[in-house]
Amino acid sequence: MALRWLTAGESHGPGLVGIITGLPAGLEIWPGRIDAELLRRQRGAGRSKRQQIERDTATIIAGVRHGKTIGSPVAILIENKDHQNWKEAMSSDPVEDESVFPPAYPRPGHADLAGMIKWGFDDARNVLERASGRSTAMTVALGAVCRTYLEQHGIYTGSRIIEYGGVRIFDIEESMVPTRAEIGDDPSMLTSLHELENEQQKKINEIVERARESGETLGGVMQAISAHVPPGLGSCVLPDERLDSRIAAAAMGIPGVKAVELGAGMSQAGIGGKNAHDRFALSDDPSHEPWYGRLSNLAGGIEGGITNGEPVCVTAWMKPLATVNPPLPSIDLRTKEPVQPESSERSDVSAVEAMGVVLEAVVALELARAHLDM
Amino acid sequence: MALRWLTAGESHGPGLVGIITGLPAGLEIWPGRIDAELLRRQRGAGRSKRQQIERDTATIIAGVRHGKTIGSPVAILIENKDHQNWKEAMSSDPVEDESVFPPAYPRPGHADLAGMIKWGFDDARNVLERASGRSTAMTVALGAVCRTYLEQHGIYTGSRIIEYGGVRIFDIEESMVPTRAEIGDDPSMLTSLHELENEQQKKINEIVERARESGETLGGVMQAISAHVPPGLGSCVLPDERLDSRIAAAAMGIPGVKAVELGAGMSQAGIGGKNAHDRFALSDDPSHEPWYGRLSNLAGGIEGGITNGEPVCVTAWMKPLATVNPPLPSIDLRTKEPVQPESSERSDVSAVEAMGVVLEAVVALELARAHLDM
Amino acid sequence: MALRWLTAGESHGPGLVGIITGLPAGLEIWPGRIDAELLRRQRGAGRSKRQQIERDTATIIAGVRHGKTIGSPVAILIENKDHQNWKEAMSSDPVEDESVFPPAYPRPGHADLAGMIKWGFDDARNVLERASGRSTAMTVALGAVCRTYLEQHGIYTGSRIIEYGGVRIFDIEESMVPTRAEIGDDPSMLTSLHELENEQQKKINEIVERARESGETLGGVMQAISAHVPPGLGSCVLPDERLDSRIAAAAMGIPGVKAVELGAGMSQAGIGGKNAHDRFALSDDPSHEPWYGRLSNLAGGIEGGITNGEPVCVTAWMKPLATVNPPLPSIDLRTKEPVQPESSERSDVSAVEAMGVVLEAVVALELARAHLDM
Amino acid sequence: MALRWLTAGESHGPGLVGIITGLPAGLEIWPGRIDAELLRRQRGAGRSKRQQIERDTATIIAGVRHGKTIGSPVAILIENKDHQNWKEAMSSDPVEDESVFPPAYPRPGHADLAGMIKWGFDDARNVLERASGRSTAMTVALGAVCRTYLEQHGIYTGSRIIEYGGVRIFDIEESMVPTRAEIGDDPSMLTSLHELENEQQKKINEIVERARESGETLGGVMQAISAHVPPGLGSCVLPDERLDSRIAAAAMGIPGVKAVELGAGMSQAGIGGKNAHDRFALSDDPSHEPWYGRLSNLAGGIEGGITNGEPVCVTAWMKPLATVNPPLPSIDLRTKEPVQPESSERSDVSAVEAMGVVLEAVVALELARAHLDM
Repeated sequence: MALRWLTAGESHGPGLVGIITGLPAGLEIWPGRIDAELLRRQRGAGRSKRQQIERDTATIIAGVRHGKTIGSPVAILIENKDHQNWKEAMSSDPVEDESVFPPAYPRPGHADLAGMIKWGFDDARNVLERASGRSTAMTVALGAVCRTYLEQHGIYTGSRIIEYGGVRIFDIEESMVPTRAEIGDDPSMLTSLHELENEQQKKINEIVERARESGETLGGVMQAISAHVPPGLGSCVLPDERLDSRIAAAAMGIPGVKAVELGAGMSQAGIGGKNAHDRFALSDDPSHEPWYGRLSNLAGGIEGGITNGEPVCVTAWMKPLATVNPPLPSIDLRTKEPVQPESSERSDVSAVEAMGVVLEAVVALELARAHLDM
Repeated sequence: MALRWLTAGESHGPGLVGIITGLPAGLEIWPGRIDAELLRRQRGAGRSKRQQIERDTATIIAGVRHGKTIGSPVAILIENKDHQNWKEAMSSDPVEDESVFPPAYPRPGHADLAGMIKWGFDDARNVLERASGRSTAMTVALGAVCRTYLEQHGIYTGSRIIEYGGVRIFDIEESMVPTRAEIGDDPSMLTSLHELENEQQKKINEIVERARESGETLGGVMQAISAHVPPGLGSCVLPDERLDSRIAAAAMGIPGVKAVELGAGMSQAGIGGKNAHDRFALSDDPSHEPWYGRLSNLAGGIEGGITNGEPVCVTAWMKPLATVNPPLPSIDLRTKEPVQPESSERSDVSAVEAMGVVLEAVVALELARAHLDM
Repeated sequence: MALRWLTAGESHGPGLVGIITGLPAGLEIWPGRIDAELLRRQRGAGRSKRQQIERDTATIIAGVRHGKTIGSPVAILIENKDHQNWKEAMSSDPVEDESVFPPAYPRPGHADLAGMIKWGFDDARNVLERASGRSTAMTVALGAVCRTYLEQHGIYTGSRIIEYGGVRIFDIEESMVPTRAEIGDDPSMLTSLHELENEQQKKINEIVERARESGETLGGVMQAISAHVPPGLGSCVLPDERLDSRIAAAAMGIPGVKAVELGAGMSQAGIGGKNAHDRFALSDDPSHEPWYGRLSNLAGGIEGGITNGEPVCVTAWMKPLATVNPPLPSIDLRTKEPVQPESSERSDVSAVEAMGVVLEAVVALELARAHLDM
Repeated sequence: MALRWLTAGESHGPGLVGIITGLPAGLEIWPGRIDAELLRRQRGAGRSKRQQIERDTATIIAGVRHGKTIGSPVAILIENKDHQNWKEAMSSDPVEDESVFPPAYPRPGHADLAGMIKWGFDDARNVLERASGRSTAMTVALGAVCRTYLEQHGIYTGSRIIEYGGVRIFDIEESMVPTRAEIGDDPSMLTSLHELENEQQKKINEIVERARESGETLGGVMQAISAHVPPGLGSCVLPDERLDSRIAAAAMGIPGVKAVELGAGMSQAGIGGKNAHDRFALSDDPSHEPWYGRLSNLAGGIEGGITNGEPVCVTAWMKPLATVNPPLPSIDLRTKEPVQPESSERSDVSAVEAMGVVLEAVVALELARAHLDM
C-alpha cells in the first residue's frame, strides 16, 4: 500500500496529531529516536526561550507494538505544553461571548490575510494557529519514523547551513554537491552533518544577536543530503511520479521556504551541456563499485525524476520569520482600517536550523514513499 | 470533482494521449486555441529543424461537444508525425528478432541509465522514448484547456526569459516580481509577455549560433506570471494542499528543470524580516481596489500556501539539453563496458523558450485545480 | 479541497485516532453530538457487558475552536478505557521477553490468518487488534461530524433493522424503499428510524437470548436511508466518481458486511425494464414540488452514479460475529499444527444494530464528500 | 507506483480512450488478447444487431514496445465505428445553430435527468453519451491488460450466469462458491466458465425472444470467480485499503449494477456464527497443500478485507436496461412539461452476459492493483 499521511493540530491547541499508513510490519521504532529529532528541531541559534523551556515528546498511540510496527497506521501525539495558558482561547467548546477573545490582526508574510479572505474570518487566530511553524514538529516526528525505515536499508540523511541571514556559512572548500565516492562507505556520518565548527557557530551567534537587538528576523539557506540511496526510486513516466517533483513539493511545503534546488541546478542552467552533466564513472575506473557511479553530482542524485545512485542533494531558501518587532502595520478586517499591532514580546529571531531538520524530514518521507513504491 | 489528469505516449510512437477530468460543463474549448499553444512550444531559438517541419495539432476525442465541455473527461490525441519513420522500431506488436534494433546507449543527464537499472533494460530506448521533452506537448495541450478555464474567470498567464545560456536577457529596469497594481486592470497583456525586443532576440540568436557550432547545448531561466488570481486558492492547513508546494512540484516535474523559486524567494532569504514581506497597501492608499493589495510582491502572490491576490510569479532554472555533439561517453549495459556513441545529427541546441511555455501550462493546470477546489 | 480522512488505533491500545480534512470553516461541531452517536453504536441487543460498562467519548484535539470548524484538519481521540488492563501486552515500547505474551490463535471468519500470512506474524494479536469492530467507533465519530454538515444542509440519515439472525424484523407493510414524497417535508424524523416497537424488541431479545445460551453469534441485515439529498451528487463520467460505487465501497468496508444493495436492486434484476425504473412524477401531479420527484424509488435515489433527489437507500448484509463459544478450531502458525483455543468468556452475540449506526456513518461520510465536491 | 487509470469517450464520439499506469515493465501484451475480450463483451443473448455488425478493436498507442510493456503508461484507443453517422451531432467543433440537433429527452433509469440537473443541460445527449454501457468497452480493454498480468502470476478469472430475467440459470448442483480444492490445480479452466450448456442457452434464448416481442428488457445476476489468488492481497487496516471494499466499488461502478455480494454473504447473514465461517482445512487433512486451505468458501476468498487463498467470488445484480419500447414517459426540461418520446428502433434486450465480462474486468483491475501493492 502506498505510504500516505495526514497531520492536524493548532499551535496552542491541546496538541499535534499525525497518522501515517503504509509502513511495513516489523519496522523497529522507538520513541527516543523521534524525540531526538524533535529536540534537534527545537535547538539552533535564534530560537526563543519558549523553545528552550518546552521540550516536545512524541507519544505513539497506534501502529507499534513491543517496539515494532504491526502493519496498521502509526498514530503519534505531541502535546502542546503551552496549551494550559490557552485553554479558553483555544477551546473546542462553544463560548458564550466571543468578544472576550480580541481578534488577532493579520501579519504580512503569513497566511493570515489570505486565509481570512478564504474562510471569511475577521480573527487571524483562526488561520495562524494552524499555519504555523509549530505544525512542523509533527512533520519531523513522521520523518523520524521514515528515517528509521531508510536507515534499516542503509540510507542516511543530514543537513547543513549554506547561508544564514545573508552571510555565507558553508565552507567553500567542501564539495557543494558530494558524490557517492566522496561520501564513502559509511553514510551514517551524515547524521552529524549539521554540527558546526566553533568559528561558524560564533559567526551565526553574532548575526543573530545583532538581529535580536534591532527587532529583526533572519532567513537562510539549508541543504539536505541523503546518501546510499539506491538507483531507481521515483519514475520518469509521469510528472507526478518524478521524485524531484515530489521532493520539490515537500520542500516548498515547509512554512517559509520560497525556493528549492536539486544538486547544482542553478549553476547548471548557466553552463554548456558538455560540462553540465555527470559523466559515468566507469570509463575512468573500471573497478569502481557500485558500477553505476558518476564523476560528479551536479544533478543532485536525480536524473529524469529517478535516483541514479548518487547522493540526493536538496537546497532550500527560507525567508526570514514574519514576526518582527515592532510588528509590521496591519489591518482590522471588521473595519478595513489600518491598525498598528502591539509589540510581540517573545519570539524567534530565526528558525533556519530548525528548517534544516524539517527539510531532512520531508526528504525522508519522500524517499521512504518512493522506496516502498519500488 | 477534483481536477486530475494522466498522459501517455512515447516520443516516436503513434502519438501522445491525455485525459483530464473534473472540468466544469459548458467551458468553451476550441482546437485552435490548443494548437496555438502547441505552436508556441515548438518555436524559439535553438530548436532543431524537426520542430519547424512537424507542426503539432490536437485532436479532441472526448469530453467536448459543439465547442463546449459536457462534464465528461476530455481526451486529446496529438499524433507524432515522425512515427512513420519509426513504425517497426516502435511497434507495439511482438517482433521475431529484437537484434535488428540495436540498443540505444544511455546518456548522462537523462533518465536513461537510472531507468535502465530500475526496469532492467539494456536498451535505453525503452526509457528515453517516454522520458523525453516530447511528452511536454501534451502537458501544453492540457494546460491550454485550463488556461481557457482560467481566462473565462479573468486570470491570465505569460512567461519571459530571465537568462539564456548564462546570459541575462531580462531587462533589469522592469519589475522582477510585479504587483497587481503594476500589471493593471487588463492582465490579458501577459499573453504576449514572451515576445522579445529585437535587441534581445539578436543576443539570443548569437548565443545559440555559437553553441550550435561547437556542438554545445544551452539552458536558461524562465519566469511565469499569472495575474488577477483571486485570493484564497490553495490552503495552509496541510503541506500537500499548499499551492506553492503544488506549483513547485509542477515546475520541477518539467524535464530539465532543476530549481524553482516563488517571487523573490532567494533574495528574501538574505535580508531582514522587516523588508522581506509585502506590506498591506491599505495604509498608503485607502481607495486602492481591490482592498487587499500589497505594496510589493516579494512573496510571488502566495503566502502560507494561499494566493493573496497579487500576481503568482514562478521562476524555473533549466539545465542545458543533454544531447551534445559529439555525445558524452556512454556504457553498454550488456557488457558494462564504456562505449562512445556516434554523433547525433539533428538536435535542439536549446529548449528554453519551449520550457517557458510548458511552465505556463503547468502553472495553469495547478491554478485551475486550486480554483475548482475553492 | 477534497474531503479525506485517516484513522488509526488498536482495540486494546491507548485509543483510537482520526483526522478528517476538507471540511468547510464555520461548521458547528459539539462534542455531545459525537458522543451521542458513539453511545448508539455501543447499544443494541446482543452486546457484551463490556459495551455497557465502558462509554466512549470523543475528544476533539484539533480543527474546532469555540464550537466551530476553522478550516484546518479535525482530529479526534477516543480513549480505550480497557487499555489499562493491556498496558504491557499492547505497549509500544520494546519488551525484553516476548514469550510472556502468549500468541493469539487465528480465528476463521476474521482477518487473522490472512493477515498473519501477509505480514509474517505468528501471533494473531498483531492483526486482530486493528482488524476489529472497535475501529468502527472512530468511523462513527467522523461520520457524526459529517452528519452535522449534512444536517446543516437539510439532509438527514437513519437506519432500521430488516433481518436479525435470519428472522425478518422489518414491518412488511412499510415501504421498503421510500420516496421523497413518502418521507415528507421533515426528514429529521429519520434520526429515530432505528427505534423499535415493543414487539420487535421482544422478538430480537428472544433470538439473542437463544443464541447466547448455545454459544452462537448472529448476523443481520440493516438499511440506511438518507433523505432530502439534492440531485447531482456523484458523477456518471468515471466509475470511481460514481456515488453508488463509493457507497458500496464504504458499506463493504465495514467489518462483517458481505453484501450491499442500492434501493430495490436485487428485485429490479428479476423484473422487466418497464416496471424496474422510477417514473418521473411530473405527469401525474404537476404541482408536485420539487419538480424532479419520482413515483417510486427502486433505484434507491441514485441513477447512473448520481443522486436524483429521492432518498438514498442502502442495505447491507452482515455475517455473524466469528467469536463463537467454544471457539472454532484454530492452528498454531509456529508449528502449523491444529489447536483448540480455550473458550472466550465475554463477548458480543451480535453487533447488527451497531453495524447500522456504522452504516449511517459511512453513508454520511460519502454524502458529505460528494456534497462538498459539487 | 500504484496502479491507476482514467478513461474517456462518448458513445457516438470518435472513440474511447484509456490510460493505465503503474504496470511493471516486461509484461507481455498482445492486441489479439484485448480484442478477444472485447468480442466476448459484444456477444451474448439479447444484444442488438449493432453489436453484431460493429466489432471493437483496441489500438495500443503507448506503453508497449515489441509486445512488452516498457514501464510507461499504456494508452488504448477503441474507435466508435458508428461515429461516422454522428459526425455533426457529436462534433467537438462549435456549431452555428444548435437547434438542428433536437434535444434528447431524459429516460427514467439512466443518469439522464440527474445529470441534466447537475450540469444544467436541457439536452439529455450531453449526459447519456458518456453515461452509457459503451464506456465499459474500455473497462474490458484495461481489464484484459490486467488479466494478462494476473495470468502470468497464475491467477485466472471467469464468470457465469446465475439468473437471467428472473429465471435461475445456474445449475443448482454445482458449488455456488467453490473452494480452491474444488477448482483444482489448473485455474485456467475458469476462462471458459461462461460457456453455456445447450439447455441453458435454449432457456435464455426463449426468455430473450419473449422480452423482445413485448418491448421489454431484462436484467440478471452474474458471478465472477478468480482462482489461485495468493493470500495477503488487500489490507484490513483501513476501510479504503480493504479488497472487498474495492471490489464492491468496482462492481457497483458498472452501469446497471445495483447489488454486490462477496461469497455466500447474504446467506451467511441468516445463519449462526458456528456454521457461517470457513474452517481451516488443516485439522481434517494435514497433507493438504497449500496448507492455508479452507473446508468451505462462504467468505468468497476475502476475510477482513484480505485474500485468504480461496477463490475470490463476487456476485452482481444488474437491473434491466432502461430503454424499453415504447419508451417510458419523459419530460422536456426547457418547459418542464411531460413528453412521450418516440419508439427507439434498435436496441439491446439485455446485456447480462456483457456485464459478466465487465465484472471479470473490474475484478481483474482490482486484483492486479492489490497484487502490485503487495
